[in-house]
Amino acid sequence: MISMEEIGKKAKRAARDLALLTSDKKNEALSAMASALENNAKMIESENAKDVAAAKNAGHDAAFIDRLVLDRSRISEMADAIRQIISLPDPAGDIYDELTRPNGMKVAKLRVPLGVVGIIYESRPNVTADASALCIKSGNAVILRGGSEAFFSNMVLAELLSGGLAKAGVNPDAVQFVKTADRAAVLEMLKMDKYIDVIIPRGGYGLIKMVSENSTIPVIKHDAGVCHVYIDEGADPAMAENITINSKVQRPGVCNAAETLLVHAGWIGNLPGLLKALSEKKVEIRGCERTLKVYPDAKPATEDDWYAEYLDLILAVRVVDSMEDAVEHIEKYGSHHTEAIVTPSDKRGWEFVRKVDSSAVMINASTRFNDGGQFGLGAEMGISNQKLHVRGPMGLRELTTYKYFVLGNGQVRV
Amino acid sequence: MISMEEIGKKAKRAARDLALLTSDKKNEALSAMASALENNAKMIESENAKDVAAAKNAGHDAAFIDRLVLDRSRISEMADAIRQIISLPDPAGDIYDELTRPNGMKVAKLRVPLGVVGIIYESRPNVTADASALCIKSGNAVILRGGSEAFFSNMVLAELLSGGLAKAGVNPDAVQFVKTADRAAVLEMLKMDKYIDVIIPRGGYGLIKMVSENSTIPVIKHDAGVCHVYIDEGADPAMAENITINSKVQRPGVCNAAETLLVHAGWIGNLPGLLKALSEKKVEIRGCERTLKVYPDAKPATEDDWYAEYLDLILAVRVVDSMEDAVEHIEKYGSHHTEAIVTPSDKRGWEFVRKVDSSAVMINASTRFNDGGQFGLGAEMGISNQKLHVRGPMGLRELTTYKYFVLGNGQVRV
Repeated sequence: MISMEEIGKKAKRAARDLALLTSDKKNEALSAMASALENNAKMIESENAKDVAAAKNAGHDAAFIDRLVLDRSRISEMADAIRQIISLPDPAGDIYDELTRPNGMKVAKLRVPLGVVGIIYESRPNVTADASALCIKSGNAVILRGGSEAFFSNMVLAELLSGGLAKAGVNPDAVQFVKTADRAAVLEMLKMDKYIDVIIPRGGYGLIKMVSENSTIPVIKHDAGVCHVYIDEGADPAMAENITINSKVQRPGVCNAAETLLVHAGWIGNLPGLLKALSEKKVEIRGCERTLKVYPDAKPATEDDWYAEYLDLILAVRVVDSMEDAVEHIEKYGSHHTEAIVTPSDKRGWEFVRKVDSSAVMINASTRFNDGGQFGLGAEMGISNQKLHVRGPMGLRELTTYKYFVLGNGQVRV
Repeated sequence: MISMEEIGKKAKRAARDLALLTSDKKNEALSAMASALENNAKMIESENAKDVAAAKNAGHDAAFIDRLVLDRSRISEMADAIRQIISLPDPAGDIYDELTRPNGMKVAKLRVPLGVVGIIYESRPNVTADASALCIKSGNAVILRGGSEAFFSNMVLAELLSGGLAKAGVNPDAVQFVKTADRAAVLEMLKMDKYIDVIIPRGGYGLIKMVSENSTIPVIKHDAGVCHVYIDEGADPAMAENITINSKVQRPGVCNAAETLLVHAGWIGNLPGLLKALSEKKVEIRGCERTLKVYPDAKPATEDDWYAEYLDLILAVRVVDSMEDAVEHIEKYGSHHTEAIVTPSDKRGWEFVRKVDSSAVMINASTRFNDGGQFGLGAEMGISNQKLHVRGPMGLRELTTYKYFVLGNGQVRV
């Protein structure tokens, strides 16, 4: 088997080649990657069947199996997702922040790929295709380390994507898959700062923690989403209900779904109606004491509930005396991901935006909008809730960095 | 003594206060900080005398002592440097990347401070003042951990700066100094990801390495500068000489000074004249075999010389057959900091810019220009040669991040 060191060296070399490609060439490669998946659907299905059989043997439930299965229509969807990335603008090569200094030299920034991106994921096999396509479009090489449950599926996908690159005359090492389920390989990968420029972990709390504690490479965390909806005094009851229900119910299993509802004490008269509407949508309510008083059907919330990322049809509900208390609650229990305020006052909305320290803050809109597609960035690698480099959706531009360049005619420092 | 945990908590609280201050209020605080230093020059001098005495006892050389001494004029310089930061524009509060989505909601980014900045430094005591002022202006709280050689000087400076904040009615915990020379405090600080948003190490290789290996907080490295000047075929001999001499000699002890000269084989006829001019500037030449052939006065370079950051009047010199070979050399031995090409061809210059993977690439200008002041950013925290978040000079804007905000009127996802 090829060593991790070898994979790193090849990726670095491929990254240097990729950084010099035109957008047309990269799009040609993406098109070949998409075709490679469609033209080899049978091979993908038969490799995927191995993972599915293993998952069944391991006793995983039907929902798990369903997420794992790759059939013709899902393979076409993966290919289409790659083709959609072709239509997005190429961020690399942009020149910006230009200025001319008093000594006549021109200074500007050139947007360039990050280099080699390492992705460690536990997710569904389509991440192999999506993440590879985003990296190629932005000019990066990628080293993929998928979860063991989708090992055969991920491996065949990566091989086909790499083959697509080769067919388009692009260095096939720009997409490499770590062909071992051995955990030691991950630990080795996390120390390869000589070859890998950034590590993106995608998965649960344990994975994110393991990566941040062991990596000597900069990490872009896509961490938990303990998102809040805060209903301010005077909020329109219908709008508050729409936004709360949408934030909680529209897709409860994702990071930008709401987990806790905070309600201003002055709005408490409307609370029973809202909670009834949520219950009708099959949402379990876990309330603070004041919530229980006006809505006795709720279960009592414990301290753990305020920290919980349920990813399920459960909502923690707390009554607060002021926006300041809501902000304090979010600061203490939240994960700096997404918060929404429902308020009739623009001024109060803006105050909330300024005081809450999260990647996205919504005034009178659902938390579910913190998403690359919804923000107009196109496809995304995930939602970052860290502060350095990228906050919120990580799209193509966030997969780049810049270098300064200077055009002089002999200038020296005096 | 106050615990690290306590320092972290106080800093987090102060950061929340600072993020809401107006530019005028922050400038008022900076002005009070500058005055606090000038008005207490005597106290600073007497604390500094303790460090100087200890350094003399420890047998440090005159240059070391000179860098450590704080006299009236240096104290005034520190105060003036703070006042210059007042005149720079405040990056926090900027709104950018605005757009309106088809559903009518407005999406934009709001530039905000990073939060709490941890600075671990071995440098001269003026860093205490400079770094604090940059953090306050950009709305960040700062935790300072200075080197033991300047312990008393750093401590009194931090106390006076914090006192200046209090005088201006700003939370004095926004500038805190770790009052122990115990190394365990640093290790504890590096795990305080709950309170500290970014760690900036400033110092030698050992410090940078220790920080990257132990930090669970994102690190912005200001690492070694193994910078190259590459003289291309056909380069004007006078321009090549000016740029090489300036890059090497103007201030050899800093990270953007050149350490290695690469010369295209087609330019070798001009090499002896250039090396003679460098020797006259007291630069020791360590050459490759081909260099030694045309300039026998040079010492032979060893493999270690190509990796060396001399920070001294020494220059490694290598003849290469092509730009490609120069780029390969830089990739192998360089530190991704600053490179310069001297060339008569804009096209070749641009090719070099694209192929070299460094924070700044100069066409026909000195490597010494990779600097916040020279690039028009004003004061800086240092030069980053990492790729995430900031590359090259780290000024006020690079001490900020953003949050998305959405202005809706009830939008939900469908």
